[in-house]
Amino acid sequence: MTMPPEGNVWRLFHFALCPVCRRVRLLLSEKRIAFELVHVAPWEPQPVYPRLNHSKLTPVLHGPLRGLVLANSTVICEFIEETVPNASMMMGSAEQRAEIRRLVAWADDCFYGPLVLPLLIDAFGTGPQPARPSQLKIRDATNTAEMHLDEIAYLLDHRAWLAGPTISLADLAIAAHLSVLDYFGAIDWTGHEQVQTWYAVMKSRRSFQPLLADRIEGIEPPPHYSNLNS
Amino acid sequence: MTMPPEGNVWRLFHFALCPVCRRVRLLLSEKRIAFELVHVAPWEPQPVYPRLNHSKLTPVLHGPLRGLVLANSTVICEFIEETVPNASMMMGSAEQRAEIRRLVAWADDCFYGPLVLPLLIDAFGTGPQPARPSQLKIRDATNTAEMHLDEIAYLLDHRAWLAGPTISLADLAIAAHLSVLDYFGAIDWTGHEQVQTWYAVMKSRRSFQPLLADRIEGIEPPPHYSNLNS
Repeated sequence: MTMPPEGNVWRLFHFALCPVCRRVRLLLSEKRIAFELVHVAPWEPQPVYPRLNHSKLTPVLHGPLRGLVLANSTVICEFIEETVPNASMMMGSAEQRAEIRRLVAWADDCFYGPLVLPLLIDAFGTGPQPARPSQLKIRDATNTAEMHLDEIAYLLDHRAWLAGPTISLADLAIAAHLSVLDYFGAIDWTGHEQVQTWYAVMKSRRSFQPLLADRIEGIEPPPHYSNLNS
Repeated sequence: MTMPPEGNVWRLFHFALCPVCRRVRLLLSEKRIAFELVHVAPWEPQPVYPRLNHSKLTPVLHGPLRGLVLANSTVICEFIEETVPNASMMMGSAEQRAEIRRLVAWADDCFYGPLVLPLLIDAFGTGPQPARPSQLKIRDATNTAEMHLDEIAYLLDHRAWLAGPTISLADLAIAAHLSVLDYFGAIDWTGHEQVQTWYAVMKSRRSFQPLLADRIEGIEPPPHYSNLNS
């Protein structure tokens, strides 16, 4: 799985509102790894993918110098954790790491397919002219997200961060999903102050700032999206 | 995520024709870890799952003594690899491990949802009286599998095992998916001798024998399913 080297920094092929791309961006930033972003529009053919990357999904990470190509956010994050040990986002014992991985998988199962993907399809499924998702789709997502916010609150009742005493990939993964929902105005934070406080802390991290600056033409986020105090 | 200890062996809550349960069974066996199987029928309520295991899917692994509960095959396999280093199925450099993880994810993306799941739903979706999937469903699966067998052959053109020079979790994962398709008679091996040879080697491993002995009442596999020479 090699491609010609393209320089000596990592290059992440991503789409700005793809929540699993956002997770990888957060992880790279938390580890202070320099990387370039390469925009991949979801409606365009994607020539960056090597044979056997059937998922045809972003993110894809190109490694510097060695011509490494990694696809799939789980594969990418595990690789980064194994090779760049500073600012570990998978700290602790095997049990604690299992808990981190469980929550990341939970986030992808619960947020991506049922919640985020229908909004992305509604917004970008028609081609190069993105449109705000329908109010119906946004309301559906808001209602379903409600239940998951309660689950997140349950975790925060028992722990400082979602998977334990320190910040981890679970926080990055779940905050990334929430950030995309929040961009579409699909989160009603009323009554979820505890989760909102945790999310505000996530938003205030340096790694989060580029995500909050992303804008898609034709789809403006609500004002609170990039407000660090709400 | 703890439950009362149930004894001093691992207990795997599984369904016999669930391909990701089969992967975990293979991994535990390859590592010579003693474990008990607890049957979970896909049509029954599943009381074994802890809070936040929303996927409601097998496998779930209960650890001995410590009351550990792990859900999600990826979480389980990573945990087993981290804690039981013998007979490693994720050998090698970070790049090689990324390749193993990529192929496991590829197997789940390409085989589970599009191929295996429709057959399982057809067979077990109606409740406690399983029925052979319709010929139409089986033919659809067979046709789609054809393409993936070519991809597997491509790997075997370049490598001794699917992910590299040694057997790995990628071989276990893909063989587990194929074994379920094969149980339903949904693989036409004609013209795929290279893949068939690799699969015959997998079938002949000690870890595979319990899988080949599984039978679901009302759905007999074809004779070649458990024949080690075909």
